[in-house]
Amino acid sequence: MSGTNRKIDAARLWDSLMAMASIGATPKGGVKRLTLTEVDRQGRDLFATWCAEAGLTIRVDAIGNMFCRRPGRDPRRPPVLLGSHLDSQPSGGKFDGALGVIAGLEVMRSLNDLGIETEAPIELVNWTDEEGSRFGHSLMGSGVWAGVYAQDHAYGLRDTEGVSVRDALEAIGYRGEHPAAPFTADAYFELHIEQGPILEAEGKQIGIVTGAQAMVWWDAVLEGQDSHAGTTPPVARRDALLGAARIIELVDKLMRARGQDGRGTVGYLQVLPNSRNVIPGEVRFSIEFRHPDTEEIERLAAEFPHLAQSIADELRLGLRLTELFRLPAQPFDPGCVALVRQAAARLGLPAREIVSGAGHDAVYVARHVPTAMIFTPCKDGLSHNEAESIEPQEAAAGCQVLFEAVVARANRPL
Amino acid sequence: MSGTNRKIDAARLWDSLMAMASIGATPKGGVKRLTLTEVDRQGRDLFATWCAEAGLTIRVDAIGNMFCRRPGRDPRRPPVLLGSHLDSQPSGGKFDGALGVIAGLEVMRSLNDLGIETEAPIELVNWTDEEGSRFGHSLMGSGVWAGVYAQDHAYGLRDTEGVSVRDALEAIGYRGEHPAAPFTADAYFELHIEQGPILEAEGKQIGIVTGAQAMVWWDAVLEGQDSHAGTTPPVARRDALLGAARIIELVDKLMRARGQDGRGTVGYLQVLPNSRNVIPGEVRFSIEFRHPDTEEIERLAAEFPHLAQSIADELRLGLRLTELFRLPAQPFDPGCVALVRQAAARLGLPAREIVSGAGHDAVYVARHVPTAMIFTPCKDGLSHNEAESIEPQEAAAGCQVLFEAVVARANRPL
Repeated sequence: MSGTNRKIDAARLWDSLMAMASIGATPKGGVKRLTLTEVDRQGRDLFATWCAEAGLTIRVDAIGNMFCRRPGRDPRRPPVLLGSHLDSQPSGGKFDGALGVIAGLEVMRSLNDLGIETEAPIELVNWTDEEGSRFGHSLMGSGVWAGVYAQDHAYGLRDTEGVSVRDALEAIGYRGEHPAAPFTADAYFELHIEQGPILEAEGKQIGIVTGAQAMVWWDAVLEGQDSHAGTTPPVARRDALLGAARIIELVDKLMRARGQDGRGTVGYLQVLPNSRNVIPGEVRFSIEFRHPDTEEIERLAAEFPHLAQSIADELRLGLRLTELFRLPAQPFDPGCVALVRQAAARLGLPAREIVSGAGHDAVYVARHVPTAMIFTPCKDGLSHNEAESIEPQEAAAGCQVLFEAVVARANRPL
Repeated sequence: MSGTNRKIDAARLWDSLMAMASIGATPKGGVKRLTLTEVDRQGRDLFATWCAEAGLTIRVDAIGNMFCRRPGRDPRRPPVLLGSHLDSQPSGGKFDGALGVIAGLEVMRSLNDLGIETEAPIELVNWTDEEGSRFGHSLMGSGVWAGVYAQDHAYGLRDTEGVSVRDALEAIGYRGEHPAAPFTADAYFELHIEQGPILEAEGKQIGIVTGAQAMVWWDAVLEGQDSHAGTTPPVARRDALLGAARIIELVDKLMRARGQDGRGTVGYLQVLPNSRNVIPGEVRFSIEFRHPDTEEIERLAAEFPHLAQSIADELRLGLRLTELFRLPAQPFDPGCVALVRQAAARLGLPAREIVSGAGHDAVYVARHVPTAMIFTPCKDGLSHNEAESIEPQEAAAGCQVLFEAVVARANRPL
């Protein structure tokens, strides 16, 4: 029975989003709810209260991931998971992460209101520390759950004040007794804002996310020679900033050679000594490339270091390039993606397929559980920014698609 | 009587250089003797003691410039000045400034040893705060003397601790009673290390400095849009760092178009937000050009802003370019320069004409007094660096040329 007359409550969804956003609210309209702080505890407690009121059974694992279960008719069936993360960036917005959790809660509340019992149980998840701002590892909670990070390693991470993850979990009372380890689940659906400009630019309401990009990250150090800007003639210069400028141009060129799917960025750069009348002798900078296609990233990872080295050689600079990590593309499950596509079509929502340009908990969960994501547009593609913004009807549309996909999956014939 | 048998004392020169270098000595072999600090006072007091021992009469002006006078046979003749500065960079070397002052002292001591009385008096000068590191105005003492800076303005400058120039002068006891204002002088000769690589590269001992370069300095701010490195496709990017990279390339190209005389540098650059997965929305940087020819700088100052604006427009960036200052070329006095040339030739020292790439007190003094400079090589062209280094015989050769030029000028027929 999958009619389009079973609506989530758009007003209740928006009210709950705003109520959650008031926890850690900033003067500019954003949210600062850093993982495992007192403010995070308040957000988690509010969420737990709402879940309990909705009749969900809550369990917390050893890394603080919260699983809030609604029983199904057949308890032997593996659960369908949905959710996202409640922690935020230091200057974050109201929707990054919170949308997927609160929309999941709205799915549960609506199932209750409509008196629907699904075949499979459904579990609403709040993953710990997706952002990584405080302890330096993004996707930490889902990463430990999925076995990407060892729990002891995660426990030992410390923030800039020296507080460890383990101690922070204890301090807020969310170091749960359940092991943080993969368990059998039938599917995972995550609703999230796009954090990019494509859906808005194309007038789409729904992004049918087919997977996450492959990526490769480097740190680079270019070394030349500090020298006086006034006394050093062109022939004697070994200007590390000129070398960095040429590598920045190369990164842009390599990105554009791969059309609109390519991503290549130098985001961090530090000049030394950074004095106006000294030709820079050293520049340290970051380089990253992303692409939906793992082979493209492999090609780039092979080609780029040689091209960068040529630039350095030509300017008589030293170049140290350190590859930090490389991630293959993570395709999502075609069956789950199809449910998202069908829901959007059935609801008459303008939609398009899209590859996620950002990392999400779903990318790690997908290693163990058939996964799909649903994107909503966000204003100007802005995220990680207190001005992050979506329209109430965009949140409602995304939540409705989530509802349809989760219910269809939880009721699928085995 | 200008024979080549009147030698300065090379060993005494080097010993005194090393003795002065011990005041504010750093572990890496450099000097930290910031203007108007207690360490500067110690350097000034040692210098004053040596001058008094050499029979010189010392007067101090209101900005702390020290003038140490050796009488001539004809007191009505305007004095010939020589000198430089004893203050240093925070991570400075032993020779930048100190060479010119201590070599001047050695000239005085040698005149005494040789029993020479010159026609005109000779005054050895220690200019206050040539470096500008502490109070933000380089060439401060000579600038006030020459009327480039108003004394009250200079008095009111404060360091990062809020200490004013006036209070600092008082605290070290060098706020003199003599007015800091130009007086009639016949000439000014300044010996200084080249602070560049040219003399060393060409195997020259002496730089016959014909003048100082024209220069123009800008501050630039490029504005684009912060956005996510993973989610923002090429078409949607407004990357301020890519724009800065292209302007850095432009500065280099404009420099090289003017051959080996050109100087163009971006030395300072700050990226915002400077986060590895955020496309930079803002970059702030410095631009400077120098050239021996004022007209070339005028042409650049007209041309560069348009070319930079085109780069910004092409990338849909905003550009704010603020011209900080512009200095015309300062030619030195042909008569004084000729004395330097002749001295080097007479002494058989390999020499070449050179334009000063750096600012020096001589540039401001030259507005009132016929001026010339003498350069010595320095190892690897390195300066503003604790490893700054010259050979004892290079110091001696420069000092001998200084001696010859000063004595010839002080004895010139009127």
